[in-house]
Amino acid sequence: MNYRLILNYWGLILLYYPAVFALPIFVALYFREDVFAFIYPALISLIVGAILFSISKPTSDIAKYREGYAIVGIGWLLVVLIGCLPYIYYGFSPIDAFFETMSGFTTTGATILERVEELPRSLLLWRSLTQWLGGMGIIVLFVAIFPTLARKGETLLQAEVPGLKVEKIKPRIRDTALRLYLTYMVLTVVEISLLKLLGMSLFDAVNHTFTTLSTGGFSTHSESIAFFNDPRIEFVIFVFMILGGTNFTLIYFLLKGENKFKNTEFLFYISVILTTSIIVTVLNLNHFDVIESVRYSFFQVASIMTTTGYTTNDFDTWSDAAKILLLILMFIGGSTGSTGGGIKVARIYLLVQYSISQILKSADPRTVRIIRFNGEVVSKEVLHNVTAFFVLYILIFVVSTFIISLFGLDFMTSVSAVAATLNNVGPGLGSVGASEPYTHLPPAVKIILSLNMWIGRLELFTVISLFIPSFWRERW
Amino acid sequence: MNYRLILNYWGLILLYYPAVFALPIFVALYFREDVFAFIYPALISLIVGAILFSISKPTSDIAKYREGYAIVGIGWLLVVLIGCLPYIYYGFSPIDAFFETMSGFTTTGATILERVEELPRSLLLWRSLTQWLGGMGIIVLFVAIFPTLARKGETLLQAEVPGLKVEKIKPRIRDTALRLYLTYMVLTVVEISLLKLLGMSLFDAVNHTFTTLSTGGFSTHSESIAFFNDPRIEFVIFVFMILGGTNFTLIYFLLKGENKFKNTEFLFYISVILTTSIIVTVLNLNHFDVIESVRYSFFQVASIMTTTGYTTNDFDTWSDAAKILLLILMFIGGSTGSTGGGIKVARIYLLVQYSISQILKSADPRTVRIIRFNGEVVSKEVLHNVTAFFVLYILIFVVSTFIISLFGLDFMTSVSAVAATLNNVGPGLGSVGASEPYTHLPPAVKIILSLNMWIGRLELFTVISLFIPSFWRERW
Repeated sequence: MNYRLILNYWGLILLYYPAVFALPIFVALYFREDVFAFIYPALISLIVGAILFSISKPTSDIAKYREGYAIVGIGWLLVVLIGCLPYIYYGFSPIDAFFETMSGFTTTGATILERVEELPRSLLLWRSLTQWLGGMGIIVLFVAIFPTLARKGETLLQAEVPGLKVEKIKPRIRDTALRLYLTYMVLTVVEISLLKLLGMSLFDAVNHTFTTLSTGGFSTHSESIAFFNDPRIEFVIFVFMILGGTNFTLIYFLLKGENKFKNTEFLFYISVILTTSIIVTVLNLNHFDVIESVRYSFFQVASIMTTTGYTTNDFDTWSDAAKILLLILMFIGGSTGSTGGGIKVARIYLLVQYSISQILKSADPRTVRIIRFNGEVVSKEVLHNVTAFFVLYILIFVVSTFIISLFGLDFMTSVSAVAATLNNVGPGLGSVGASEPYTHLPPAVKIILSLNMWIGRLELFTVISLFIPSFWRERW
Repeated sequence: MNYRLILNYWGLILLYYPAVFALPIFVALYFREDVFAFIYPALISLIVGAILFSISKPTSDIAKYREGYAIVGIGWLLVVLIGCLPYIYYGFSPIDAFFETMSGFTTTGATILERVEELPRSLLLWRSLTQWLGGMGIIVLFVAIFPTLARKGETLLQAEVPGLKVEKIKPRIRDTALRLYLTYMVLTVVEISLLKLLGMSLFDAVNHTFTTLSTGGFSTHSESIAFFNDPRIEFVIFVFMILGGTNFTLIYFLLKGENKFKNTEFLFYISVILTTSIIVTVLNLNHFDVIESVRYSFFQVASIMTTTGYTTNDFDTWSDAAKILLLILMFIGGSTGSTGGGIKVARIYLLVQYSISQILKSADPRTVRIIRFNGEVVSKEVLHNVTAFFVLYILIFVVSTFIISLFGLDFMTSVSAVAATLNNVGPGLGSVGASEPYTHLPPAVKIILSLNMWIGRLELFTVISLFIPSFWRERW
């Protein structure tokens, strides 16, 4: 393990990090709110960054993926720890602040805030911004902007956006990162404009755009999107949530005028959203008339499947069949290369295909069934990696659920709180349902759930490795 | 597909089957109950068997594993269909009768009977006997006894007792089957004697022995084992449940004086029971004093983990943490080669080991971690088969849960009813909890749950293959 290199990069991340505080500081100035809530954290980041940078030495060593894990895994933790200082400044307990910030950067959207409206606007914007940054990846951003980080860009991107080999749009990784962020920005500007056009205040439009495209789900209103009660706004957000859960490479090419949507994962993603939306619509006909049912069901399915977590209706009051379906969708999640969480559509597609091929093989062992993905044959190795990922994912889910239930949480709350955090969705069911924040949970549970968000966002291995002693050993 | 051979074997099974009706007929005669409830089914079995046997031709063709699946998969269905006739004779609806009989032969123990005590004794005995037969396997029994079936014994045993290559105790498969059944009989005689000694009536002792060793869990009392309220009886049953969940090969060797218990699966099995019993005991200290907590918790953990399903206390009233743990135990189940259901201890052991090795590998790719099982290195192929099995198992669980929730069942009931039937446990939680039978469920749900029992008992592929059209095609 090259500790010098790692310290150096942590230093770099913290040196760059203050730049993102510019936006909430500007908002604080504009609304005449306290700027020190953001100036202090920015300063602390600078100082710690400078110290780390100075005690290490810029090195030309190649960052192997293990260093990549350490840089990104711990780098994220540092970003969250400093990111929670504005909350602490405003009087939140450290654990609540940590939970809220982790929920932000991981684009989970679970909140400990009971009355969001009471927060200063600059803090609300910071809260939304953490999601926007975490969605595409804060390390990706630095790689895109700062040449120093770009040198090791590939390894870092792999640790922050795992699950697939990062598809290079351009041969140089920095150009790829830059283009992904440009795509993200274009969508951001378009959504802000549309929401503003439909009558949202600029402040609400910016905040909700930040948390739509990142599939984060934080809202500036306790009622979430239900606050606006406007089907047109819901439709715009619906479309942009689905874009947020789409592989951004596809959107990049779309903006360039190339249609690459005949993509296995994208087609499966859309099919699942459509099918389940229709089923939930039918299930909800007990509660609503047809129009309402379509409106609420399609929105909620897209919101949960893309792991955004916005609500327009308290789905905790829906039928248990609908709730079970939403819970299943949480685990499917967004597409690879999107801002969505969960196991990811591509993996689920491969797991289903693999199971079908196992069944067919058991019915007739001479069956040779080739699994294709975007026209290419999927190797056995990939299938085995995906199943191993699934097994570990389920084990983490089961163990976490049991552990938090030890703190006296009921069955539905335990199961859904872990599902909602590990998959970076946000709202769960039961006492962490659509209309109820995570405020009342015991501190230890908040920490375990934060850990689940972190593990889920960086797709298991980047974070879990950090807890293995041999990972830190010097021996190679 | 060799249809002649398959028809021939179905015929043979139905020709042998009437022999097992001798016991309930004897009991009916003894208690002066209606013998025709069993004579009619026996006759029908004979007639259908004779027809199948005569239209097919005994053939010397080798039964491949595909024929084995068809013989055992459909053979089981025939055995259940005829086995439910006594219930229908006594006025139960065909679906309830089917559910109860499937629950019997698969050793699930889920019941549609609200007042078990009201049943004729001969029918109660038949009910317990279905579990005893299904536990070790009815095809195994016929292979052991009847030389004609023994010819294809190995293929059939593989289809009825999957999950491992049947460990041959003796080179000839018939001798192995015979010795397994002899071991089973010895344990049966010992448990009956012990229960009788502790004051149970002979009738109760026989019934409960049948349903303990088979990890079935049917009781002749609505209160299950709680009816006796005798810690000594509970202790005997506790020990024999654990034996039921143990690989019978180990017990066979024990009876021969050889100690083979230094076995990876057995040690893991005992460790899990011990650890979780202690945790549940601690969790239950809210409800009970220490002695009571030990008494109820150890019993319930062993009952659920071995997939027996007896109850001495209504665990549906325990804390949700305890319930979640019991739910997890349902999926672990008994050992391979035991009468227990579930995913099986050996598979869970391998899945955990595999996940650990994946984590260690991600922390340090040069780690070469060899997974051993009973001292032997486990091949990658075995690990991949086990993970594929797990993925399919979880998919079936999730899909079944969603489907039955469509019939208006609540979350907890849907999840636990599928868990309790797919894993062949019996009682679930919620409205199918420890003290509540499955009576009130809609007929369609009963059929889906019966299907889950069937799929679970024959470990997925034997049954699922039957639903694949290519399985039945003539082409090889």
